[in-house]
Amino acid sequence: MKRLFISSSLLVIMLSLSAQNLTAQSPIPDSFSEEADALIEASIENELGWERLNYLGDYYGPRLSGSQTLEDAIDWVVEEMKKDGFDRVWTQPVTVPHWVRGKESATLNIPIERNLPMLGLGGSIGTPDEGITAEVLIVNSFDELQQRSNEVEGKIVLFNVEFTTYGQTVSYRVNGAAEAAKHGAVASLIASVTPYSMQTPHTGVMRYQEGIPKIPHAAITTEDAQHMQRLADRGEKLEVTLNMEAENLPDAISRNVIAEIKGSEFPDEIIVLGGHIDSWDVGTGMMDDGGGCVAAWEALRLIKKLGLTPKRTIRVVLWTNEENGLAGANEYKRWVEEDEKSLEKHVLAMESDAGVFDPLGFGFSGSDAAFEILTAMGMPLKEIESGEVFKGGGGADIGPLMRAGVPGMGLRVNGEKYFWYHHTDADTIDKLNIDDFNECVATMAVFAYGTAQLEEQLPR
Amino acid sequence: MKRLFISSSLLVIMLSLSAQNLTAQSPIPDSFSEEADALIEASIENELGWERLNYLGDYYGPRLSGSQTLEDAIDWVVEEMKKDGFDRVWTQPVTVPHWVRGKESATLNIPIERNLPMLGLGGSIGTPDEGITAEVLIVNSFDELQQRSNEVEGKIVLFNVEFTTYGQTVSYRVNGAAEAAKHGAVASLIASVTPYSMQTPHTGVMRYQEGIPKIPHAAITTEDAQHMQRLADRGEKLEVTLNMEAENLPDAISRNVIAEIKGSEFPDEIIVLGGHIDSWDVGTGMMDDGGGCVAAWEALRLIKKLGLTPKRTIRVVLWTNEENGLAGANEYKRWVEEDEKSLEKHVLAMESDAGVFDPLGFGFSGSDAAFEILTAMGMPLKEIESGEVFKGGGGADIGPLMRAGVPGMGLRVNGEKYFWYHHTDADTIDKLNIDDFNECVATMAVFAYGTAQLEEQLPR
Repeated sequence: MKRLFISSSLLVIMLSLSAQNLTAQSPIPDSFSEEADALIEASIENELGWERLNYLGDYYGPRLSGSQTLEDAIDWVVEEMKKDGFDRVWTQPVTVPHWVRGKESATLNIPIERNLPMLGLGGSIGTPDEGITAEVLIVNSFDELQQRSNEVEGKIVLFNVEFTTYGQTVSYRVNGAAEAAKHGAVASLIASVTPYSMQTPHTGVMRYQEGIPKIPHAAITTEDAQHMQRLADRGEKLEVTLNMEAENLPDAISRNVIAEIKGSEFPDEIIVLGGHIDSWDVGTGMMDDGGGCVAAWEALRLIKKLGLTPKRTIRVVLWTNEENGLAGANEYKRWVEEDEKSLEKHVLAMESDAGVFDPLGFGFSGSDAAFEILTAMGMPLKEIESGEVFKGGGGADIGPLMRAGVPGMGLRVNGEKYFWYHHTDADTIDKLNIDDFNECVATMAVFAYGTAQLEEQLPR
Repeated sequence: MKRLFISSSLLVIMLSLSAQNLTAQSPIPDSFSEEADALIEASIENELGWERLNYLGDYYGPRLSGSQTLEDAIDWVVEEMKKDGFDRVWTQPVTVPHWVRGKESATLNIPIERNLPMLGLGGSIGTPDEGITAEVLIVNSFDELQQRSNEVEGKIVLFNVEFTTYGQTVSYRVNGAAEAAKHGAVASLIASVTPYSMQTPHTGVMRYQEGIPKIPHAAITTEDAQHMQRLADRGEKLEVTLNMEAENLPDAISRNVIAEIKGSEFPDEIIVLGGHIDSWDVGTGMMDDGGGCVAAWEALRLIKKLGLTPKRTIRVVLWTNEENGLAGANEYKRWVEEDEKSLEKHVLAMESDAGVFDPLGFGFSGSDAAFEILTAMGMPLKEIESGEVFKGGGGADIGPLMRAGVPGMGLRVNGEKYFWYHHTDADTIDKLNIDDFNECVATMAVFAYGTAQLEEQLPR
C-alpha cells in the first residue's frame, strides 16, 4: 500500500515533464497523460471492485474446475458484468478436467502416532478403501531417489525438499509420483512447496507419465516432513497410513468469461487483459486469482465509467481451468486463431496472477521498441510507484498467445508472501487490502488504455 | 540470532571495564566476569540442549495435563537429568485437571456451507451427540453483547474481536462462554486470539462462572470470523453447527520436575529457574514452553559441566499444568512454604515462558537495590546483547512465589511472532533456532549463577 500524496506544485512539474517526454516522436497521444491520471484517481477511490472481490470469495469461495461453485461464480460474474454496460459480455465453453478430492487423511503410525495435516495433489488417484499403509523412505532429491532405487519397492516415498524457488521445488509436486513409481513406490508424499508454514499443506497440480503406474500423491506440511526427517536421521523406521478418496471424473464443461469495449478507430485490434476465474478447492482463491480477475474487470469498467473511448478494443478474459489444465487459455487461443482470426490483431496480452499485492509494474516480453513505448506509458503511474516495465514476464494464461507471437506482460507485485498462501486454505481476502488492489486496477487500466490509444499499433 | 564476534583486543577492554565496574562496592565477586564468559561460551557452543528439545517435541509432542504423554515426557526428563550428575533430581506430585478434546468440528450451514477449522477451548463442555445447530449472533465486544441482550436467547454468540494485546483480547476466550450464557446463548465461539492467521485456530483455557449455565466454547479462525462478519453486515442470517466431544474427566496426578545443585556456602538459599513442562494438546509445545524448560535445565547442566560451585543452591523446576490450572506452580509454592520452609530463603525466581527466541534480557520485579545489582550482573551478556534488565516482569509459574515476596524475573525475547503460534498446531521446533536457544541458555545461566555468587543475598 502506498499513499497518494503529491503537492499540487510537484504535480504540475510531473505533468509537464511527462508531457515533454511523451511528445518527442512518441506514439503516445498528448491526451494520454491526463486520461491516465483520471484512471489512477478513479481506481484509487474505487470501492466497487473490492466489494465484488469480497463477494466472490464470500459466496463462491473455492472454484475448482468441474465444480458447480465455479459455474455459479461465472454466472454471477456475467450477470454483474452486464450491469457495467460493456459493448459485449459472453462466455466461451471449455472442456475441463474434473478432479475431486473426497475425504483424505494421513497418519504417522510408527515410531509415534501423529495426524499429518495433508492435501492430496490435483489429478492424483485415490487409495484403496482401506488406505495404503507402508514404510516411508525419505529422499531430498530425485538424485537421491535414483541412488537409493533398491530401497524404494513397496514403500511410500517422501520427497522432503527444501523450498528454493517455486520453479525448482514444484517439480517434486508435479513429477514426484511418476518418479517414485518408476522405482516401485506404492504412494508418494511431498513437503509442501512453500518457504513458510504454520502446519499448512499446499495443494497443486501433479502429473502421471505414460506407461508408469499411477500411485497416490499428496502434500504434507514442511513441519511434519522435517519431523519425519529427524526421526529417520536417528535411525527410526517410519510407517504412514494414507487414505484418499480422490478421483478423476469425466471431463466437464466450464467457461471463459469475456467482456469488451469495442475500439472506436481500430475495433479489430485487441488488447486482452485478465486472470483466471478457477481456483483450487481450498481457501477462497482470492490471491490466486480472484484478485487478478476482478482487477482486470475493474480496469475495463473504470475506462467505461470515465467515458473514455479507446481507439482499439479492450477485452477482459477470465480464463477457466488455469490450475489444472490451462484448458481455458488454450481454448481462447484456438478460438482467436481459428474462429475470430484475430491472432495477428492481438496487440498486447496482459495478465495478473501473482496476487493483487502492492504493484510494481509489469514484466514484459516483446520487442525493444515496444518495451520503450510501454516504459514511457508507465510514467503517470510513478505517483503510485507502479509504472515500471521490467524486461521479461508473462503468465500461464497468456502463454499460448505469447508463444504464437503476441507481446505479453504480467503484473509484478510485492509478493513476498505469495507462496505462503498459494494453494492453501489461507488464500483468503484478508491477505489482500483495498489500497493495493486499487493500485493494481490503476496499473492495468493505464497500460491497457494507453496501448489502445497508441498512434500506431504496439510494434511486435 | 546474534553472532559472537569480538576481537581479542576489544575483549581485553571489555573485561577490564567490566572488572572496574564490578569491584567498586559491588556484591558481585571479581571471579564472576570470567565465569560468566565461560558460561556464555559453553552455551553458545552447546548442542545437547537443542537436541534434547528436539527429542522432547519429536517423541512426546503435545503434553496436556492429565495425558499419558505428559507423564511419559516427565519420565524421560527425569531419566536424562539423572545422567547430568545434579545433586538431586526429584518429582513432586500435583493434582491437575484432566480435560480431553475428543472429536470436534464446526460448519457454517447458512447462507453458504463452509467447514470452519476450530479448536475447542480448554475446560469447555462438549455438545450433545447431535451437536448444536443454531443461528449465530456476532458481537465485537462484551458491551455490544450487553446492548443486544434481547437477541441472544437460543443463539450461538460469536465474539469477533480484533487482537489488540493478548491481555485484553484473551478475556473473550476466558470469559466468553459465561458472558454469552448469561444472556441465554446455547454455545459461544471466538475469533482466535492472534494478530496473524493462516486459517489457524488457537486453543487456550476458558472458565465458567458459578451459577451460570455451562455452554460449549470454541475458537474459529480470524479469517472465518471476518467472513461471517461480512455476511452478517450484508444482512444475512447465519447458522452454524457445532460438534464437540470435549469432557472434563476426574482430576489426574502429574508432577513437577525438580533438579538442583546444592550451594557450597549457603545451601539453604535458593535460586529457582524454570518453565512449564505441560503444553496444549496441539502442536508440540516447543515455544510454549518446551524451550523454556530445556533452556533452564541446560543452564544448570552447563554450570555443573564447567565445574562451577555455586555458593547458593540453584534449582530448576519444570512446573506442570501451567496451561489450564497453574496447579504445579501453586503446589511448588505450597511445598516451599509448608514443607521445605524455604520461602524466605528463595532469593530469586526466574522463568522463561515467552518462547526461546532471540533474548534481550530479563524483566525484573523487585527492589531497586536488587535491580542495580542484576543490571551490573548482566554486563558480560552484552556481547550477545541479552544482558539488559528491564523494570517489571515475572511469569505465571513464579507468580505464587512473587506474590509471597520472592523477587522474580521473566526472560524477555524478541517474540514478535509468539502469538502467531501460541496454542496452535504450528508451535513446532522449526519456529525456533539453535542460536537463539543457546543465547537463552547463556542468559539464564549467567543470572542464575551470578545471583548464587553474590557476596550478600540479593536484597528483597
